[in-house]
Amino acid sequence: MPEDNATTDRRSALAQALAEAGIDTPIHEVEALVQGVAAAAVQNRDWLRLIHPAAEADAALAERLDALRRFCAEAPDGIGTPQQEARLAALRAELARRGLDGFVVPLSDEHQGEYVARRSQRLAWLTGFTGSAGMAIVLAEQAALFVDGRYTLQAAAQVDGSLYEHRHITEEPPDEWLKEHLAEGAALGYDPRLHGASQRDRLAAPCRAAGARLVPCEDNPIDALWADQPPAPLGPIAPHPARFAGAEASEKRETVAARLAEKGAAAAVLSAPDSIAWLLNVRGADVANSPLPHSFAIVHGDGGVDWFVDRRKLLPEVPAHLGNAVHVQAPETMANALDALADADKAVLIDEAVTPVWMVDRLTEGGAEVIRGADPCALPKACKNAVELDGIRAAHRRDGAALTRFLAWLAAAPPGSITELDAVARLTAMRAGGEHYRGPSFDTISGSGPNGAIVHYRVTTESNRTLEPGTLYLVDSGGQYLDGTTDVTRTVAIGRPEPEHRDRFTRVLRGHIALATARFPRGTTGAQLDTLARQFLWQARLDYDHSTGHGVGHYLNVHEGPQRISRMGSGAALAPGMVVSNEPGYYKTGAYGIRIENLVTVTEADDADGAFLGFETLTLAPIDRALIEPAMLTADEHAWLDAYHARVAETLAPLLADRADALDWLHAATAPITAA
Amino acid sequence: MPEDNATTDRRSALAQALAEAGIDTPIHEVEALVQGVAAAAVQNRDWLRLIHPAAEADAALAERLDALRRFCAEAPDGIGTPQQEARLAALRAELARRGLDGFVVPLSDEHQGEYVARRSQRLAWLTGFTGSAGMAIVLAEQAALFVDGRYTLQAAAQVDGSLYEHRHITEEPPDEWLKEHLAEGAALGYDPRLHGASQRDRLAAPCRAAGARLVPCEDNPIDALWADQPPAPLGPIAPHPARFAGAEASEKRETVAARLAEKGAAAAVLSAPDSIAWLLNVRGADVANSPLPHSFAIVHGDGGVDWFVDRRKLLPEVPAHLGNAVHVQAPETMANALDALADADKAVLIDEAVTPVWMVDRLTEGGAEVIRGADPCALPKACKNAVELDGIRAAHRRDGAALTRFLAWLAAAPPGSITELDAVARLTAMRAGGEHYRGPSFDTISGSGPNGAIVHYRVTTESNRTLEPGTLYLVDSGGQYLDGTTDVTRTVAIGRPEPEHRDRFTRVLRGHIALATARFPRGTTGAQLDTLARQFLWQARLDYDHSTGHGVGHYLNVHEGPQRISRMGSGAALAPGMVVSNEPGYYKTGAYGIRIENLVTVTEADDADGAFLGFETLTLAPIDRALIEPAMLTADEHAWLDAYHARVAETLAPLLADRADALDWLHAATAPITAA
Repeated sequence: MPEDNATTDRRSALAQALAEAGIDTPIHEVEALVQGVAAAAVQNRDWLRLIHPAAEADAALAERLDALRRFCAEAPDGIGTPQQEARLAALRAELARRGLDGFVVPLSDEHQGEYVARRSQRLAWLTGFTGSAGMAIVLAEQAALFVDGRYTLQAAAQVDGSLYEHRHITEEPPDEWLKEHLAEGAALGYDPRLHGASQRDRLAAPCRAAGARLVPCEDNPIDALWADQPPAPLGPIAPHPARFAGAEASEKRETVAARLAEKGAAAAVLSAPDSIAWLLNVRGADVANSPLPHSFAIVHGDGGVDWFVDRRKLLPEVPAHLGNAVHVQAPETMANALDALADADKAVLIDEAVTPVWMVDRLTEGGAEVIRGADPCALPKACKNAVELDGIRAAHRRDGAALTRFLAWLAAAPPGSITELDAVARLTAMRAGGEHYRGPSFDTISGSGPNGAIVHYRVTTESNRTLEPGTLYLVDSGGQYLDGTTDVTRTVAIGRPEPEHRDRFTRVLRGHIALATARFPRGTTGAQLDTLARQFLWQARLDYDHSTGHGVGHYLNVHEGPQRISRMGSGAALAPGMVVSNEPGYYKTGAYGIRIENLVTVTEADDADGAFLGFETLTLAPIDRALIEPAMLTADEHAWLDAYHARVAETLAPLLADRADALDWLHAATAPITAA
Repeated sequence: MPEDNATTDRRSALAQALAEAGIDTPIHEVEALVQGVAAAAVQNRDWLRLIHPAAEADAALAERLDALRRFCAEAPDGIGTPQQEARLAALRAELARRGLDGFVVPLSDEHQGEYVARRSQRLAWLTGFTGSAGMAIVLAEQAALFVDGRYTLQAAAQVDGSLYEHRHITEEPPDEWLKEHLAEGAALGYDPRLHGASQRDRLAAPCRAAGARLVPCEDNPIDALWADQPPAPLGPIAPHPARFAGAEASEKRETVAARLAEKGAAAAVLSAPDSIAWLLNVRGADVANSPLPHSFAIVHGDGGVDWFVDRRKLLPEVPAHLGNAVHVQAPETMANALDALADADKAVLIDEAVTPVWMVDRLTEGGAEVIRGADPCALPKACKNAVELDGIRAAHRRDGAALTRFLAWLAAAPPGSITELDAVARLTAMRAGGEHYRGPSFDTISGSGPNGAIVHYRVTTESNRTLEPGTLYLVDSGGQYLDGTTDVTRTVAIGRPEPEHRDRFTRVLRGHIALATARFPRGTTGAQLDTLARQFLWQARLDYDHSTGHGVGHYLNVHEGPQRISRMGSGAALAPGMVVSNEPGYYKTGAYGIRIENLVTVTEADDADGAFLGFETLTLAPIDRALIEPAMLTADEHAWLDAYHARVAETLAPLLADRADALDWLHAATAPITAA
């Protein structure tokens, strides 16, 4: 395949810019750095040091490199260009060349996380589908795209139905399609770096049934065709100091070593970047919104760690920070390290949900005993320590002040003068100046009127709406701070709300309060609490189609396990120090969306023997009283709301002392509801 | 082993009584009939017809046979006699004779149900342990008894710790004990009629680990030693007419056949007696309290049924009732029928939780395709039809009137004049005269003061307490009626209750009301609703250690699946027509117990599109207002209580028209709470 023109142009421009800046770093390395840096937090300038030692000191050079970074981040990489037919044909030719009759294209990377780098968006490159979840299977004559209910319409708009059969991923799953279409003796290829063991099992069953073979590919055939595929990101990795983390990495390694001993394991393979970041007290910049360092690790029973990470990503102070018990290894030596575990007959703990299947196979085939269990970092990471919790509270105060300034601005704006995109820009600017702020924790959801009813709405120039009087405006946003991660949703009446708006909002609020004030015995799971948040909507035969709460990391992923509050649950009990969201909502398609989201932490305060747990609300921002129908609240709910607002005002007022407009609005917005 | 003297004496007495009555039925057959009949409902005289055609017509003979039946039911059968050491030694000798190194003794029969006949209480005969759940494993040198937390104390009192190691069945499970104690090459015997497939798997794993073998026994070694083991019960089987069942058996067979077609199965094996009773519209009398016909069945894809049942149990009208599509087969031909399915390469649906493992093995070894899935009768049986629901409502009116008469009597009794046993007798007598009444649906729980805090309390002459002023009295009882099964708990203040009693009772009541008034989307499981009933106790850091609700059959088992309301749930969604209990409680060990139990049925009434479901409360009886603290109720809860009481009074008053005392008490007990 010839290289795309766009790629050639981009490379030329980059080379020219580097030459002008006097930087002689090889172009492929700069490309990788820029790819990583493009994803890093906007104010994080550590990356400059990686490209050029002088860049930090030289403001003009820094500015120029920053512009270059933005240019590269926006440069085309082949995703979104309408070449579905040609690419599908090229893939089929490549498969034929390799003796394969088909290939599976998941939307995942080597770490099975929620966010994947541009480099790993092979599904989008091949099919044009840009949703956040999906899978394609390509055979010699047929191909199919599998997406869930959120993306049926988007897939229809983006992907040519004459090339790909469109199927619902749970109602018409891949295994059924494979059973129908795989010929006896066929060889179906897959990339063993992109599938966990349980996912591979789901592909193996229909292959067996059809008499076909499932064949691991040494390298991904799409990578051989994707000329301007971005390189693996090289986001800089920095220490995350114990004054934020609340514990030295050495203590954490001991904790995990003790868990391994409990399980009878001599070592564990870690493939979740947030687990590694937590364990080693480091943060990276390889994907947008989360400070993840893409890498793998092996933790040993003595607390030592082999860390398989590209050394070029490490800031100079990292090695000293890691100490002697952590050995930085080249990523390509991971296979040998697995072989060494197997040769030594070690029992190795593996989390099948996240570990790439090639690693499990390598261990098993080498003769290691594989112990299946949860990632040993997941639970201790989820249970925040006192220092982390203090940091999280501090981050929420700063974040609440920024959100309050935004809400005050919104309240003061002339009716019909603001668009959804204006609001995003304003809110981002309000957070940008904050202490320890490192960027948004996810793409802000800014939905007015009917756009508010789209749960995962992302405003674009095409979808952008003006906030019109008589509508509701929903804004869901969050920040990454060195001392914590925030995630907050408020729904605001633009002008005078309808009685229906008030009724629905008050039902959502009552559910929110029921969860916020819940007390529950130790051992309770989020699944047991989910109904508390839905009960008042259910009474009116209404509901919402998302979970009530997700775990949140500490300056890490905004969605983190193992706990969650949802109908299906995860089986993990809520434990002190866990942070979860409390976010019931209601969505009327084509009309409006409502969501009230605060983060809470699980506490055992106020209980002598620790048998019962409860929640402390962390998020601090006014809840729109114009949308509350006081007659629908019980006395206890009424009291909760007034007490929450009093706490919001008392806590945030000092942070807004020099912003009279915001302060006045805050006091009015948090007055007792009886005065509303 | 010589026959026990007790057995010889009993046999002589029986033979003499029969001779005097002029009955020449062989003695072993009469024994089996009596064993079944002893378990049957007290007013059910159909059994007389089986013993002697003239008995029904001759009142004096009937009375004499009835006395004989009571005598036989109470006669010793070797359970409870203190011969643990001798019996253990005899079992070990028997095992050695058979070349076995050990044997597993579960507390179960061939049907894996909640109640087992005396004949199947091999664990009690061997060890002396009479709890309702447990297991023993006997090896040549060691033996262990496994029980759950409810029975730790009882096991210590009943079973010699020098003979059996006492272990907690979940915390120190059998597989660990087996791994420790099984020698390599050892042969561990088990009775394949008494274990489901999944239970056998749990025994097989430690055997594999220890290098031992798990060996099925052709016949149970304990049966060879137990001289006065009761025969298999021969409770009479009668038709259950469509005017109660709401559907002809032929319709039900078609429904089940359609489910088989959906699953791709040519046949299903049924081993749950309540499934067979539902499917064929028959009821039996083989265990206490539930009208179960012990038998097995194979349902075929064309709706035909092979019913493996002892013909002697069938009342004369049964064959005509069954029709031509149901073929009565001798139980001992079941194995051949399974072979025939296998020979014909049929796909057979099996519920692994209830089907004896020998049947699964026989099918598998014969080459049948075994499809694992739920018993195809379970769900349609759980979803009651309109006729069944009308019958259940009628049964609850009669039952409510009987309970009201009892409660009125209790309220009028002089303080300190009644014992727990007096109360049981009085309540039984109140129900006994009712239309369609067939006996209690379980052993009445009648607990005063500290006895009320024992969740599964069963009063004996030793434990019997007087209902003292200042205490609470808890009574949980139910009836089997031809048109429905009831199960109701009321807690009553004896004299003046303490403030703590009122606080706890009101929290339990609020939970009961929250569940009774819940509305929820179709697809919701009981696990999602459980917390609604607990939330007000949790707020005070209190809880109860049992599930909130269980399914209830229609003139069948008082505990029936697949639905339940409990923390763990069953995964089965609540569906219209299901009947479940709503029974939150609170128990203070050594002090008092509180439970408020009504049965409810799932409804879709009052919802146009059927997307949301709710509950209709079926049970009708006053809730003790002296135990309610009105200030703790919300306005809605207050209104629910008054409306419920008004409905109770309005519905029950006509049934108590000729009982002035009870009627007066009813009106006072159901007055609005504001007047309390």
